[in-house]
Amino acid sequence: MYMGKARAYTNIALIKYWGKKDETLILPMNSSLSLTLDAFYTETQVCFDEGLTEDQFFLDDKCQSPKQTAKVSAFLDLVRQQQQLSLFARVDSHNFVPTAAGLASSASGLAALAGACAQALSLNYTPEELSRLARRGSGSACRSIFGGFAEWQKGTDDSSSYAVNIAADDWEKELAMLFVLVDDGMKDISSRDGMKRTVETSSFYSGWLATVEADLLAAKQAIAAKDFTKIGEITEANGLKMHGTTLGAQPPFTYWSPESLKAMQLVRLAREQGLPCYFTMDAGPNVKVLVEKKNIAALTTFFAAHFSKEQLITANAGPGITLLPAERSDKS
Amino acid sequence: MYMGKARAYTNIALIKYWGKKDETLILPMNSSLSLTLDAFYTETQVCFDEGLTEDQFFLDDKCQSPKQTAKVSAFLDLVRQQQQLSLFARVDSHNFVPTAAGLASSASGLAALAGACAQALSLNYTPEELSRLARRGSGSACRSIFGGFAEWQKGTDDSSSYAVNIAADDWEKELAMLFVLVDDGMKDISSRDGMKRTVETSSFYSGWLATVEADLLAAKQAIAAKDFTKIGEITEANGLKMHGTTLGAQPPFTYWSPESLKAMQLVRLAREQGLPCYFTMDAGPNVKVLVEKKNIAALTTFFAAHFSKEQLITANAGPGITLLPAERSDKS
Repeated sequence: MYMGKARAYTNIALIKYWGKKDETLILPMNSSLSLTLDAFYTETQVCFDEGLTEDQFFLDDKCQSPKQTAKVSAFLDLVRQQQQLSLFARVDSHNFVPTAAGLASSASGLAALAGACAQALSLNYTPEELSRLARRGSGSACRSIFGGFAEWQKGTDDSSSYAVNIAADDWEKELAMLFVLVDDGMKDISSRDGMKRTVETSSFYSGWLATVEADLLAAKQAIAAKDFTKIGEITEANGLKMHGTTLGAQPPFTYWSPESLKAMQLVRLAREQGLPCYFTMDAGPNVKVLVEKKNIAALTTFFAAHFSKEQLITANAGPGITLLPAERSDKS
Repeated sequence: MYMGKARAYTNIALIKYWGKKDETLILPMNSSLSLTLDAFYTETQVCFDEGLTEDQFFLDDKCQSPKQTAKVSAFLDLVRQQQQLSLFARVDSHNFVPTAAGLASSASGLAALAGACAQALSLNYTPEELSRLARRGSGSACRSIFGGFAEWQKGTDDSSSYAVNIAADDWEKELAMLFVLVDDGMKDISSRDGMKRTVETSSFYSGWLATVEADLLAAKQAIAAKDFTKIGEITEANGLKMHGTTLGAQPPFTYWSPESLKAMQLVRLAREQGLPCYFTMDAGPNVKVLVEKKNIAALTTFFAAHFSKEQLITANAGPGITLLPAERSDKS
């Protein structure tokens, strides 16, 4: 029996990952940059066990169906193949999210699973090696290995595509993010399907690719200079650009809901009123607002006039992956 | 004294005009295609008069300031220059719009002014020649010379850039449009400034240009085939693509408000419920829904559950420019 346990935090991309070059290896079309946050995390324990006849996946103590277990099993298959192991495993995951608003992230989930596997099998991976492994589970998970800022360097193949920490002299500790959870009026298409359709059909995808590396470089320079206005403007523009690509797809689609646009307008309004903040969005209608920590209370108050308390979640920069002591969990 | 009077209707582009190649001559970067509508029109009388010492512009019987008169005067200057005329003019315009919701369109206004000038000076222009003249006042005005479908052929210079009628065997009479007037949460940037910024800075503008002529060709084929689903899909995708370009601009911007997105979602919902309809938007937050005339009542009822009566305006295909008898108007 081999056991391991890890905690990983979610991350929000300031420069977006948008499009796969290789669907199997999960190699991205472009490099990306993120901030790891403390508000959402996943703790996952894995136990490779001779006594099991199939993989078992418990999420928040609930046994998951074979369909719900498929993604976890596919990742375990990869690990078993790499390590020439033939044992099935029991996986116990707990998502720690402030509300049940569907913010559970595959980034924290797959990063924690990768960390738990690495610990269970005593792989002694470097952070970069662990990042490579997490990437195979879910692209953005590779960034959650690191705290603070992380850059997913796209690389050219399986061995060169992983995230690295972006040293910021602790500047990330002066930043915060307000999550605005908005009602989802429409059934979205998944992140995976959305980026696939965009890569394959959008008139704008080449324009995205032609400019995103410059955005990334500018973002790193802004971080090095601790220039909040600059990182904010770059983040907001890059996020809007990502969402613009979906409007050039065939058929076109959007992740925005009316409430998303309301939140975006409020960010612009807050800025006009002297409160510096910038929004970004991912493959869903929620809006994330980057703000200096000293202004997070004022921003939350500003938003509280338009959104309910339950819709507003504040987050600070979070740590990288943490290994935890594993313990038998046959109880459920 | 030379007098002329004309009425011109507004038009809504199904394939958008988005970007100028020449700001002075108003030559567009791409050809466009529109449907002229009967719900909004402008009647304009012009009187070139020896007794005037400056141009006078009355809009809805109100004397306009020099600043408000500047665009009209600039157009009159062009006409005077072309016709070697030195008389100032009095211009009387009336906008006929169902509400005061700011839907007065420069397309109907400048087309009517061009028609009134042509009549006043007995220019005996062909429709194409009149379209060329109207284009100099406001790009999209060149399409309002024609009823039904019109294609603004971008051309290569002043003499080759004008609109022509797209024969549709009266199919346009089976179509209608529902205008959804939505609240404008943000101060928009003008159509003129928005397209300029997009042409100059958007990462997506080349993607727009690379595909819009194919959209136009497909739209003409759909019209020839009287294929409502096809023209609807092309219209909706082309409009979204135009709005996507603004998200790739530096700085990015959008004409959408939360209510715009609500209206777009309702169109998709109506479609899912078996009511075929498709939206388009221009450089503002209002949403225009293309529908078959036989379904306009059902669509209006559907929207009336979410928007007030005053926000909903139905329009049918409208006629081209009409010359009217001019009469002295020294009264005001």
